Formats: sequence, C-alpha cells, structure tokens
Amino acid sequence: MELEFIDWLRANVPTDPRARLGLSDDAAVVSLSGRSDVVVTTDMLTDGVDFRLEVDDPNQIGRQALAVNLSDLAAMAASPLAAVISVVLPRNRAGARLPLSLAIALYEGLLPLAREFDVSIAGGDTNTYDGPLVISVTALGQLTPRGPLTRSGGRPGDWLLVTGSLGGSILGHLFDFTPRVREALLLQERYELHAGIDLSDGLAIDCSRLAAASGCGAVIFTDRVPISADAIRLTEQEKATDREATALEHALSDGQDFELLIATSPGTAQEILRSQPLDCPVTHVGELVSQPGLWQQDQTGKRAPLKPIGWVHN
Amino acid sequence: MELEFIDWLRANVPTDPRARLGLSDDAAVVSLSGRSDVVVTTDMLTDGVDFRLEVDDPNQIGRQALAVNLSDLAAMAASPLAAVISVVLPRNRAGARLPLSLAIALYEGLLPLAREFDVSIAGGDTNTYDGPLVISVTALGQLTPRGPLTRSGGRPGDWLLVTGSLGGSILGHLFDFTPRVREALLLQERYELHAGIDLSDGLAIDCSRLAAASGCGAVIFTDRVPISADAIRLTEQEKATDREATALEHALSDGQDFELLIATSPGTAQEILRSQPLDCPVTHVGELVSQPGLWQQDQTGKRAPLKPIGWVHN
Repeated sequence: MELEFIDWLRANVPTDPRARLGLSDDAAVVSLSGRSDVVVTTDMLTDGVDFRLEVDDPNQIGRQALAVNLSDLAAMAASPLAAVISVVLPRNRAGARLPLSLAIALYEGLLPLAREFDVSIAGGDTNTYDGPLVISVTALGQLTPRGPLTRSGGRPGDWLLVTGSLGGSILGHLFDFTPRVREALLLQERYELHAGIDLSDGLAIDCSRLAAASGCGAVIFTDRVPISADAIRLTEQEKATDREATALEHALSDGQDFELLIATSPGTAQEILRSQPLDCPVTHVGELVSQPGLWQQDQTGKRAPLKPIGWVHN
Repeated sequence: MELEFIDWLRANVPTDPRARLGLSDDAAVVSLSGRSDVVVTTDMLTDGVDFRLEVDDPNQIGRQALAVNLSDLAAMAASPLAAVISVVLPRNRAGARLPLSLAIALYEGLLPLAREFDVSIAGGDTNTYDGPLVISVTALGQLTPRGPLTRSGGRPGDWLLVTGSLGGSILGHLFDFTPRVREALLLQERYELHAGIDLSDGLAIDCSRLAAASGCGAVIFTDRVPISADAIRLTEQEKATDREATALEHALSDGQDFELLIATSPGTAQEILRSQPLDCPVTHVGELVSQPGLWQQDQTGKRAPLKPIGWVHN
C-alpha cells in the first residue's frame, strides 16, 4: 500500500520551496523565512471517539484532522506553515474501503484546506493494521512580530470576547468549521491582546483553563453568550429525550466550536466590539476577575458558580 | 485519564527554555537558536505491526517510538531539538494495563532517550479508545552549517559506507538501538559526505532507495557486509524451520538496523575507513555505479542483480 500511496502523494501534493525533501527523504527541511522560532502543535483523531468512519465522510475526517491543528495555531496567533500527517488505516474488512482508497479520501479532504491556509504538507507516515482508523497531524507555524498569544497573559478586569456563535457543533460544524487563523492574526496585528485560547472542549471549560493559566477567575455573562442556530436546533431535537439541554447549556458546554476566546483590556475590547473587524461577529461574553473559579452572571447581575462543563477527554 | 496524565507530565517532563508553553498552552514555541530552517520527521508505531504490547515492554516501545524519529534526523545530519508525542491507548481490557499506567510506562521509556539526546518534549496528545496502542512521534531538528545530508547527492563512483553491523534486529536491537545521531553529526562535520540514509527497512532496499534518489545504481560487496552477532544467532535459531535464511541474507534484508549508509568520494571514504572516527566500526560495503539498479558482487568480482529485499510496509 505504502509505495502506491507515495506515488499518489507525489502526483497530488504540491511541492513547496518552503518545505523541501519531505516526500523524498528521511525528513523535511522547513524554512521559517528568517525567523528562528517555530510553533508546533499536534492532535490525534481516532475512529469511535472523534468521528465514526461507518457514517462520516473520510474527506471530512481528513479535513478535520488538519483543521483542529490549525485552530491550535490560531489560538497562539501563529501563521500556519507546514504539517506532517500520520495515518494508520484499518486493513481490508468486508464492506469497508480499501486502505489506499481511504488514505486518498482523507488527503482529498485535507489538501484543499492546506491550500487555503498555505500549509505545506512536509511529510507523513501511512500504514495499515488490524484496528480503527487513527490520524495524527502535527502542524508547524510561525509567530508574528508580536510573539505568541498565550493562555496565561490575562489579568483581572480583562474583557472576554468570543468569535462566532457556540454550541451544537455535532450537527456539522465540527467537520466544516474554518479555523480562525485569519481572525487571530488580524486581531493580534491590530490590537494588544492579553490572552487567547481556541474553544475545542466547550466555552465553560476552556474559559476556566484560560482563567486558571492567567492566575485569575472568570465570569461568563450567560445572557450574552452567542448561541448558534445549531445549538437551538439540537435543543429542539433533544426535547423529551433523556439528553434534554437548553440551547444555552449547549453553547456553554458543547465541544468543537473552534472559535476564539480572547482576553484584552476593556478599552481594546470596546474598540474591537465597535469596529467588528472580522467577517464573523465578536461578542463580549464575560470578564476575568481576581476571585479564582468560574462564575456565571445573568441580566440581574447575580453571580453564581458555574461548573466548568465541557467535553472531557477520557 | 488525560488530566491525571497531564499532571504526571508536568511533574516528570523537564521544562526547557528552548520549547516554551508546550504543556500549558495550545501549542509550543520551539526556539531554533538563530537558525531559520527546521527539520521535521514523523513516524507512527502500531501494536501488532511494529511491536506486540502483549509481550513487549512498554518502556521499550516508548523508547523505540522516539528513537526511530531520531534515526531519521541522524540520516539528515540534523541535531535533535524537540519532539511531540501522540498516543492513543486501548481502553481498559481484562488483564491489560490501565491506560494511565501504560501512558506513564511509554514516557518512562522515552524520557531517558530524550535526555540523552537533549530533545525537549514540546507537547502531545493522549487519548483512549477501543483499539490497539498507537504512538506517533514528530521530531524537530536543526541543521548544521553544512546543511542537510540527503539521499540524492550520491554520484557514480562514490563508496558506500555503513556504520555498525547488520541483521537480526528482531532479537532485541530494534528496541535497544541508539540512533546514530552523534555519528552522523561527527561525520558531517569532519568530512564532505554526498548522501545518506538510515537503514530502517534493510540494507538492500534502503541502498536501492539512496541510489535511485541519486540517479544511479549501487553494488553491494556481499563479502564485506558487516554481519551482526544477532544475524548469526537468528540463522542458528531458524535452522530447519521454514524461515531458514543465511546470516548474510539477514544482514541484507532485515529491517530496523537503524545504522547509517553514507555515500562519499573514494578519497574521503578511505580517510574515514583509515581513521575510524566513530565508536562503532565503519565498513566499506559497496559503491554507486552509473548502471541503474541494485547489484551484488562477491570476492571473485562477479556482478549479479540483487533484489531490493527488505521490510516492505503494507
């Protein structure tokens, strides 16, 4: 399988002067165009946990595997540069796709996204075995002159802004989301941001992570959380089932929104909210506070503890 | 599992100023100390193919997963810098290790090797699922001022040198080998090398790959191939079984030697052979020739085709 697949890769993966030797040598040489820091992130997706190969489209699975990594680069305000892709494919099973055809379908899903974000495919490893599909992507990025946006730079009093709308990602967004790379780079270039994280596990839990890394607590304004149409749709669908949840609960706790949560000074936040510089809405969802922990506050101003609910990896 | 494991990582993975933010943020920032090229390589090992979790020691599996990547960096004459480690662990099964204990055992195997080669663990992803153990490592390295050693720089007339001795790796060397990083860097620094590759799939097939990438053919001097004690031992063990093979056949075709095969001019090769600058022997095993293909030549000087036998990934 591997040699045939390498032939396919040679014909279909564009060569890129920034990433040399990847498909023809033991390793690739990635050029950082003069910079000497590289940002690196990795995510591994597995059948039965992150997707279900029986029902999900391999194109979308391949795209998602790259997209989640680009979202991590966005969270650091890093510009994507290259990625390596490791795949282990289930050996032929009755009724299932042949490994080669599955490998190609995964790549056909991720290559357009790589093109869109100018990510060079710098190498990989493709094998078969007796087990479920696993795909592991490591992405490399470059910092802007502003340096990395980290989780730890927030301060009490900072406003919390979120891009887009939240919840119900399971209805499709988890596969077709566009990583907020352009948004992060634009915000980082124009404004002085203090801290940032991408919402991979849910607003509540990821917000509590940013707050904890910044050594403070956070309040979420529950009446301002931007609820997605899918969160509402999901609530409708779940009515009278045992998984019933409000749309707000979905927006607070559903994983895989892949939106950005940013902490910045109230002044800068107001500027961003006024000018709305992104193609998607930016919403003021809360603030960092000196009291540790996660809190919710409704229209009445009443503050109560909020559990850092979300998708917990097991 | 993941949070507990991250706590373990925080306590056991040394922090390193060259790789910041890896365990605390969405991505790590790896410093290339002034250089602006990064070498990247990735390898994924799977239960049932690369190891057998039922019988093999998880310490050794973890070590191996990092070591094969360092061997790829060595093949490029790159100095190891950082690695990210993705692991997907089989969910609790009767009689099997708990995922957390398995994850820790893998890391306990790889951390000493990381320390030995000054590799910073810059991040990773650890999950569980219903499937076999998969471990994927991506390693980053830095080039020396000489640039990368590639597969493609060989020329007809170059001598082929190999480090160490070959074959029988399955008896233990595949787990306890030391990647030839120091050897590659020393040779690249002191001598003008033309091409190099690490022997991961077997001398015959990897030699044919180097020759093909260099646009030439190669002759292996079968009477000069350094045969390991394990290759001889394996031959003894296999006597009168249906897998009977000579020690030379093992040395030519067994995978996972992780020795270096180097092409350089006859003059430079003679210098290296005379001075034997490494802790392991360097042997003259063949030469590149203008006639494409892979050839073997014995003491009598008779040349015959040699099949590029080796471990072919399927």
